[in-house]
Amino acid sequence: MSHFFKVQSLEQVMQLVSEFEAVATETLHISKAYRRLLAKDIYSDQDIPGFKRATMDGYAIYSGSSFGASESNPAWLEVKGSILMGERPNFSVELGQAGKISTGGMLPDGADSVVMVEHTEVVGSSEDKENYSPTVEIYKSVAPLQNVIDKDEDFKKGEKILEAGTILRPQEIGLMAALGISELAVYKIPKIGIISTGDEIVPIDQTPQHGKVRDINSYTLAGLVIEAGAEPVLYGIVKDDKDALYQACRAALDETDMVLISGGSSVGVRDFTVDILSLLKDTKILVHGISISPGKPTILAKSASSFDSTGFDSSSAGYSKIKPIWGLPGHVVSAMVVFKVVVLPFLQRLQGLSSFGQNSSSQLIRAKLTRNVASAQGRREFVRVRFIKERDDLFAQPILGKSGLIRTMVMADGLLEIDENREGLEKGEIVNIIPLRAFS
Amino acid sequence: MSHFFKVQSLEQVMQLVSEFEAVATETLHISKAYRRLLAKDIYSDQDIPGFKRATMDGYAIYSGSSFGASESNPAWLEVKGSILMGERPNFSVELGQAGKISTGGMLPDGADSVVMVEHTEVVGSSEDKENYSPTVEIYKSVAPLQNVIDKDEDFKKGEKILEAGTILRPQEIGLMAALGISELAVYKIPKIGIISTGDEIVPIDQTPQHGKVRDINSYTLAGLVIEAGAEPVLYGIVKDDKDALYQACRAALDETDMVLISGGSSVGVRDFTVDILSLLKDTKILVHGISISPGKPTILAKSASSFDSTGFDSSSAGYSKIKPIWGLPGHVVSAMVVFKVVVLPFLQRLQGLSSFGQNSSSQLIRAKLTRNVASAQGRREFVRVRFIKERDDLFAQPILGKSGLIRTMVMADGLLEIDENREGLEKGEIVNIIPLRAFS
Repeated sequence: MSHFFKVQSLEQVMQLVSEFEAVATETLHISKAYRRLLAKDIYSDQDIPGFKRATMDGYAIYSGSSFGASESNPAWLEVKGSILMGERPNFSVELGQAGKISTGGMLPDGADSVVMVEHTEVVGSSEDKENYSPTVEIYKSVAPLQNVIDKDEDFKKGEKILEAGTILRPQEIGLMAALGISELAVYKIPKIGIISTGDEIVPIDQTPQHGKVRDINSYTLAGLVIEAGAEPVLYGIVKDDKDALYQACRAALDETDMVLISGGSSVGVRDFTVDILSLLKDTKILVHGISISPGKPTILAKSASSFDSTGFDSSSAGYSKIKPIWGLPGHVVSAMVVFKVVVLPFLQRLQGLSSFGQNSSSQLIRAKLTRNVASAQGRREFVRVRFIKERDDLFAQPILGKSGLIRTMVMADGLLEIDENREGLEKGEIVNIIPLRAFS
Repeated sequence: MSHFFKVQSLEQVMQLVSEFEAVATETLHISKAYRRLLAKDIYSDQDIPGFKRATMDGYAIYSGSSFGASESNPAWLEVKGSILMGERPNFSVELGQAGKISTGGMLPDGADSVVMVEHTEVVGSSEDKENYSPTVEIYKSVAPLQNVIDKDEDFKKGEKILEAGTILRPQEIGLMAALGISELAVYKIPKIGIISTGDEIVPIDQTPQHGKVRDINSYTLAGLVIEAGAEPVLYGIVKDDKDALYQACRAALDETDMVLISGGSSVGVRDFTVDILSLLKDTKILVHGISISPGKPTILAKSASSFDSTGFDSSSAGYSKIKPIWGLPGHVVSAMVVFKVVVLPFLQRLQGLSSFGQNSSSQLIRAKLTRNVASAQGRREFVRVRFIKERDDLFAQPILGKSGLIRTMVMADGLLEIDENREGLEKGEIVNIIPLRAFS
């Protein structure tokens, strides 16, 4: 069957993210929730840390006791006692008094600040066995709350502390630990179905005969899915056969949250993907052709499935789940680029992300271009680059090579994006690079 | 027991990375090897793709047949046949002949280039049912290998294609798939033991009494370990008791590849870590105090263990395993900063990384400082910043707040590094930020 592209811009395609919704939620212990996305806002039910806490080793005092103190004119304070870590002090301090305290310790009543031990000297004989001396000299004045965390300085009771859609980094999990919140509502890990198509594709454990190639895309796409924090489900290689592709799509749609079909997305004789998607029940083609290079022959459809990826038949509950299904170019580099620049925001939408993460400008690496790069107007181009470090400068060197060469992706540290309206970029220009990194 | 810091610079500490070695290796299927590090060099045993391959839909020709062709003066070529995807062509082409081909198809003998279908027109009636026409007009000349990948253009037989110590990104795994390499020697995932110390620390499911706080560090450090691609092993909370801490250290050293002890790393009354490390058999303190802020009270020791983390008793084989053991500050922010800037390169060494990844300059984000930042000379400072986007500019806004406040880490998008020799940085300066990201 013959088709023509109805090419849309990348911006138009990005608008379609709102056609889809996040996957279902589940409740997990915080030790299992790293990198998940929060499904509900979190409020603090308490002040944190809940008491005035020393941030330095030294002496807890009322700050007024130190006013005017200096090396030449130290303040002499009576040491009322030593504060044991993790215990409420058994004394209070007033003007002219101090309590010996360690970092993390609780200030006694009356104290509002801590003088660092480096700015003090014990008067008279060395420290006795109870570790304090009756008198201490203070060489430096402190302000109220200096070297102290106030009782509600980290978080106040009733405050909203995290919003739904936040990614749980180590520090967000640490914050939950601080609040004693051990269980969290988070979005599930989306399952992403991956189908490789093409009569020329053979499994990786076979030696391809002339004209055939091994199935690379199943592995690169699975890797990109894992890197993005989702779970790949491989449906293997489907020959250029409409029935087989239909069956594979139907199974993948019912068992996963999003489907990636690589190969057969163009408008050639063997490019069946768009036909199959048209045949699927309750499926609408949203995009066929994007004005990007590489990656123009990309298809996006939305398809209704009775099942969610856990096998729950939602049709019995009177609704069906709307899922994205993609036809990606068969070229390995094109498929990877389309994943990074087009598919990923949709995957992040399924993951529950409240704002775009990976390709947002704060994730981009700024580097200096090593040579002129020509570009065709009217389409967004993505050029593979490698980074070269020279002293404090970071350079981006365009990698020459055809998009079918996986070598160019192995060499690449990132993707340089060239706007539709530019005829090219000039040597020495500062450019933003989408990183292709392995370590987060 | 009383101690003093012997403070070293960050550079001095980084030299100590070479005191340690990578963990043991294992063989995995490539579908399980994403993000692992390659343990052996990989050579290609074949040319890839192994045949001349079309990168466009069109007509495969001998390039000389198109010389001088233009819109006004097209070349007329005889179409010898159509090439089926994944099959060796059953014809060859000579000067004046062409074969219809799809992207990814194998060129027939005699052909060295492909004319894009957009630059051709079938002469006479529309395409017949075999999908080719006896004659095609060519409107544009092509050069040899234009729109073609040569048989060894991706990789040549015998070529070294990946080096030991390379991180396996999706594209490196894809390359292994292309070569039919389904099993790889990779480094194991290091196990990292985590111990929280301090009488003031209570488990997260307990309500802390005044002066006590919940165990945050076990969770933030575990998250950082996971983010770095390793496996945390939690040993819980150990009270300020030398015997208990000794036992926990001994167990963690024998069961894991590296140990992190948070709290008790300073020189105060309850700071036992350095004492305990001194008591451990075959253990040498390498560092006590680093001239960084936050994070000065950091301890690094190297300790010999009879066991590797899989439980193998290597002493029977006549050697013992040298493992790093860290005393980290108890402050949550300090511990996180020390992990990111000091511990991580050591972890990457254990993982088998051939060059530093995460904090290498190509991972840094360049941004414009929103305000002056003062800094003390003689120590490396790390200031938490948040990113602010304004049009094409990215700004780094320093976060004010004490290092004990986990709020400041939750707000932070990255860490600004200020050199020992600077008294501070100025508003508007372009600075490099170590990202604190969640999505890789």
